[in-house]
Amino acid sequence: MNVRKQFRAGSEFRIADHHPGDKPLSSGDKPADQLRVSGLAEQIAAFQDIFYAEHRRKLLVVLQGMDTSGKDGTVRGVFGRLDPLGVRSVAFKAPSTDEREHDFLWRVHEQVPAMGQLVIFNRSHYEDVLVPVVHGDINEPECERRYRHIREFERMLCETGTVLVKFFLHISRDEQKRRLEARLQEGDKHWKVDLNDLKERRYWDAYQERYERAIRETDTDPAPWYVIPADSKTHRNLAIASVMIDVLQDMKLSYPPPNPEYFKIKVE
Amino acid sequence: MNVRKQFRAGSEFRIADHHPGDKPLSSGDKPADQLRVSGLAEQIAAFQDIFYAEHRRKLLVVLQGMDTSGKDGTVRGVFGRLDPLGVRSVAFKAPSTDEREHDFLWRVHEQVPAMGQLVIFNRSHYEDVLVPVVHGDINEPECERRYRHIREFERMLCETGTVLVKFFLHISRDEQKRRLEARLQEGDKHWKVDLNDLKERRYWDAYQERYERAIRETDTDPAPWYVIPADSKTHRNLAIASVMIDVLQDMKLSYPPPNPEYFKIKVE
Repeated sequence: MNVRKQFRAGSEFRIADHHPGDKPLSSGDKPADQLRVSGLAEQIAAFQDIFYAEHRRKLLVVLQGMDTSGKDGTVRGVFGRLDPLGVRSVAFKAPSTDEREHDFLWRVHEQVPAMGQLVIFNRSHYEDVLVPVVHGDINEPECERRYRHIREFERMLCETGTVLVKFFLHISRDEQKRRLEARLQEGDKHWKVDLNDLKERRYWDAYQERYERAIRETDTDPAPWYVIPADSKTHRNLAIASVMIDVLQDMKLSYPPPNPEYFKIKVE
Repeated sequence: MNVRKQFRAGSEFRIADHHPGDKPLSSGDKPADQLRVSGLAEQIAAFQDIFYAEHRRKLLVVLQGMDTSGKDGTVRGVFGRLDPLGVRSVAFKAPSTDEREHDFLWRVHEQVPAMGQLVIFNRSHYEDVLVPVVHGDINEPECERRYRHIREFERMLCETGTVLVKFFLHISRDEQKRRLEARLQEGDKHWKVDLNDLKERRYWDAYQERYERAIRETDTDPAPWYVIPADSKTHRNLAIASVMIDVLQDMKLSYPPPNPEYFKIKVE
């Protein structure tokens, strides 16, 4: 079965139909699955080499998910083998004063990939239809307008040579609890702790609802959403890497044709 | 008569109906008109002071026109009295390699005004539906797509607090000839000469036609185009300044209300 179809959200997406603990791609043997992830990550790196040489398209990967859902881990586990020459990961934090004084797409547009570049957004413009809505800082009509701004912006990116792949890392409330507790118990992980994350947990249901809405409203054929069950880190990476391979294969990448004249040139 | 209505292009815009030599606002007395321009420029500066203090909206002025049509002169003559604290003029040249490897709106979006800022675009994203079309580097469907990208982008800017005013500085082919010759005859103006401008003149009719199309396709109520007869420099400034005053008056600017508590504070 085509993995993209398998994880595609679609415009009728209902979050309740997706279970964070599912592991449809798992072999049941964790070390074997980890090995598969490594193999796929190598394969992605090989594709990216051609993609970079081709210099004809752009690739933008969006990672979204609740706190601790594994966005950083995905960057490391799935995209960690890529040549930094053509890859950039961008983490969007709470907007600065200067950023807030522009439209919400301003700082995002600045960071989109150029020809031959692969850019990974660790959070993105989707935060702007989640956080402020959950906290009542923008109203429903403003949120609807932002969905439209996103659809139009992403369509423009796709029409100007960008392949766009959006992942929602779907974890359960219980798994988040375990991960937050683990961070609090391990001194070496305290740098990852933001006490604010503990407060945001109270809004869990509201966030789930807004994720459902946002994904429905912005899942389009040129800019699809994939919903990745993310309670298992290994399976999460396996699923994301598999979708990426599928996308890259579909791009029919090839090195630019050699120049027959070059073979004859004598270097003085 | 409302000057905005008088110069508004509209979606039925036909360039042949507009005469570059017209001077509908002129008193017939050039020194008197120059004095009026100075007065209006001062008035714009006074409005901008409130606009800056208000810090609630953004103002974007787009200047487009053939070579020598007076874009630089407009910046100086109409916006020259403004406090640089809240004003920025951005000149868009031929795109760099990095800029060409992104969508055409990328470098433009980066430069849009923040809250309380007035930004003047000296050339803009409209070059991307003129130069490459005239020279056959993009085809008609791609050009149509760009019109849509522009409409959606400008609508998004307006919906996120930007007041957008677009001026087409309309000069005649003969007037351009006179101005180019004057530049070639005056050694002190040689820095302004780009020999390429002389070649682009051959495409005059094609440019006129593409300006007509571009303006028709992108004149919208939130992002209107004004067609300014520009063979006379004084009248050009008079017309642009008058439209700007009209726009600024319509914005009903006011200083933020004073805080009654502040009056009572003793500074230690």
